[in-house]
Amino acid sequence: MDIKEKAKLSKESSLTLSTASSEIKNEVLKNLIKELQNNEDEIIKANKFDIERSEKEKLPKPLIKRLKFDHEKICGVVDGINSLIELPDPVGKTLAATELDQGLELYKISCPIGVVGVIFESRPDALVQISTLCLKSGNGVLLKGGSEAKETNKILTTIIMNATKKAGLPSGWVQLIETREDVNEMLKMDEYINLLIPRGSNAFVKYIMENSNIPVLGHADGVCHSYIHDDADINRALNILIDAKTQYPAACNATETVLVHSNIAKEFLPLLKEKFNKMNVELYGCEKTRKIIDVTPVEGEDWHKEYLDYKLSIKVVEGLDEAINHINTFGSGHTEAIIATDKKAIQKFMDLVDASNVFSNCSTRFSDGFRYGFGAEVGISTSKIHARGPVGLEGLLIYKYKLFGNGDIVEDYASRKKIFTHKKIER
Amino acid sequence: MDIKEKAKLSKESSLTLSTASSEIKNEVLKNLIKELQNNEDEIIKANKFDIERSEKEKLPKPLIKRLKFDHEKICGVVDGINSLIELPDPVGKTLAATELDQGLELYKISCPIGVVGVIFESRPDALVQISTLCLKSGNGVLLKGGSEAKETNKILTTIIMNATKKAGLPSGWVQLIETREDVNEMLKMDEYINLLIPRGSNAFVKYIMENSNIPVLGHADGVCHSYIHDDADINRALNILIDAKTQYPAACNATETVLVHSNIAKEFLPLLKEKFNKMNVELYGCEKTRKIIDVTPVEGEDWHKEYLDYKLSIKVVEGLDEAINHINTFGSGHTEAIIATDKKAIQKFMDLVDASNVFSNCSTRFSDGFRYGFGAEVGISTSKIHARGPVGLEGLLIYKYKLFGNGDIVEDYASRKKIFTHKKIER
Repeated sequence: MDIKEKAKLSKESSLTLSTASSEIKNEVLKNLIKELQNNEDEIIKANKFDIERSEKEKLPKPLIKRLKFDHEKICGVVDGINSLIELPDPVGKTLAATELDQGLELYKISCPIGVVGVIFESRPDALVQISTLCLKSGNGVLLKGGSEAKETNKILTTIIMNATKKAGLPSGWVQLIETREDVNEMLKMDEYINLLIPRGSNAFVKYIMENSNIPVLGHADGVCHSYIHDDADINRALNILIDAKTQYPAACNATETVLVHSNIAKEFLPLLKEKFNKMNVELYGCEKTRKIIDVTPVEGEDWHKEYLDYKLSIKVVEGLDEAINHINTFGSGHTEAIIATDKKAIQKFMDLVDASNVFSNCSTRFSDGFRYGFGAEVGISTSKIHARGPVGLEGLLIYKYKLFGNGDIVEDYASRKKIFTHKKIER
Repeated sequence: MDIKEKAKLSKESSLTLSTASSEIKNEVLKNLIKELQNNEDEIIKANKFDIERSEKEKLPKPLIKRLKFDHEKICGVVDGINSLIELPDPVGKTLAATELDQGLELYKISCPIGVVGVIFESRPDALVQISTLCLKSGNGVLLKGGSEAKETNKILTTIIMNATKKAGLPSGWVQLIETREDVNEMLKMDEYINLLIPRGSNAFVKYIMENSNIPVLGHADGVCHSYIHDDADINRALNILIDAKTQYPAACNATETVLVHSNIAKEFLPLLKEKFNKMNVELYGCEKTRKIIDVTPVEGEDWHKEYLDYKLSIKVVEGLDEAINHINTFGSGHTEAIIATDKKAIQKFMDLVDASNVFSNCSTRFSDGFRYGFGAEVGISTSKIHARGPVGLEGLLIYKYKLFGNGDIVEDYASRKKIFTHKKIER
């Protein structure tokens, strides 16, 4: 099958999936757990093949580490599926109900988006996680995983298809796409694909956003800031900053720039330098910072930089307004934090900073679907429409309006023969 | 000011607007009512100038009719503003609240999208309606109206700005754009504009969708179908069809194609022809239709056609499945209706037809924000994300996550020193 046929088949199957009962969807998930457990040896064998090839091709070690899919990873994936089974079915919920007139009733009902195109990194667990989220929400999915995980992705997709067939549903809803050329084809297929979720590097996500008319859910940059107000508890601020920068520097929610109120810069910056030097974090700073501590100068455009590394930019600001303005200019709308005591300052920051996640007195690293308690996430969105911040199942849903009549015509209302009642239907 | 400066100013002002209280936003709306009433003579004078110029330029009469902005129209606009004042403020609502751990609280709060770019037809009342919806939802707006309404749009924008200033808010949130070149500039300004709402012809909306990376809310085609099942009450079906086609044929929710079950085609089609001939509706049909009644043949691609006129296509289908399949292939995801008695058939149709609005036993013409009881609408969306169907205030809103901590760091949870509680906060 070429990619167009795969997309068409996914769309067709997704229609059946969209009306499947909770029971049958959960049956697929339960079958999948069994299939994963029964085929563990085969899966690990396929994964070893991928790892050996990647080692021969001298892929970077962190990439090979992420590629690994062993007994422990399978257990993790099974745990995830079990939590998903427990979640209520998000499809078919009545979101609003109005009587337009006697016997003319309008219902707003949640439904799947249709077909989702997901392009994800080398972790094979992401394949299972995303597919099962799509299944539970009644969506078809086209999956493009990292080519280094080729064999693992193949066997996992086959297993998902088998689990679907055993529950009596059409297995075509999930489709694996294997080449980079197919990704470019995917970007043009707005007839079949309703949403793209690219997970990966900044440049890659930007490329997808700029080259497709299909809506994209996700984020390119994660240029997150932590602002230290002049009434902040200094030790608490340092503690939060260390976590925000070094707990996992490669994450999109790691802090890249710290903004320090000028009133406390002289006291705060030397302590910050001492702490971060111990953690081997390279420091960059504005002119005002460099008058207090010895760090590498930051150039104009550098404020846009996402280091994803043990590097931190520092800027001294004159106060809250300059901090907010700097963040709204150079931030990427991902996660922004204020460390302060004054409640008014905190409120102003959280209201005026235009970002998906605005935090007070905690680490930017909390910005994550699992930490938020969503159970599972498809990604973190910096979009201003549809879904923002960490996105769970609800990002894969939309609604339709169902209107039930008894021969009603508009002319009766246009001619004022009848009048709309617009009464809320109590549920 | 050039368009970039206007967009930048609207974005800056929209930040202040996003935190403005309900009281102050309603004060602007009340000021606006006064300003419209106090400046009625000036407005009508400007509008007469537009109408005279348009008449000289020999613009089509329906266009000149829509352009007219007289005492009655001003009263209608004032009524609309009064209803908007009554609506609850949609900004700052808590949509969800979770305790992640003791003293670490997450709130999902509704907020404005930012700046909306609206390109609308010649009706000057649309300018006031859209701007006031943006104001109430805390969004900035760039308005591009029809050039034939130039003078009317200018004075209305000035009046809105004055009403804003008198309430002590920055007036820059609303900006008028005047040239077609500016529209092309607008499409590139994803840095400042967060959502585009194009209202106008099919080709125009498609052009916008294909030439901008900014998300678009709206619809291009409205190829709506009414399917007559074999157990339908014939008279009721004919009555609904006449309304769906002729009550206002130029509307996007008018029925363009009727699908008739083959079991009743021989009885139904001659009656349909008789009724529609009386209304001067031209009929087109498939081969099976043409064996029963004498109508013009429909060619393959014609099933995609949006007539917006006294024209109707007819197709005989073998049953529900073929009807659903035809609609999912040729429909535009706008509004689709079934006329039937069997509840199972109705349910299947409404579940499987992939459209924003699915109706049973009523006219497709009901698909409209006012008829749905939304009070006001920005347009009808056929998108699969964000907002679907008639869109009121809620389509101009998104949310942000606010996390309030007390020095919390992620490392405490990664190291299992602490465990998330993820308790719902009762409100």
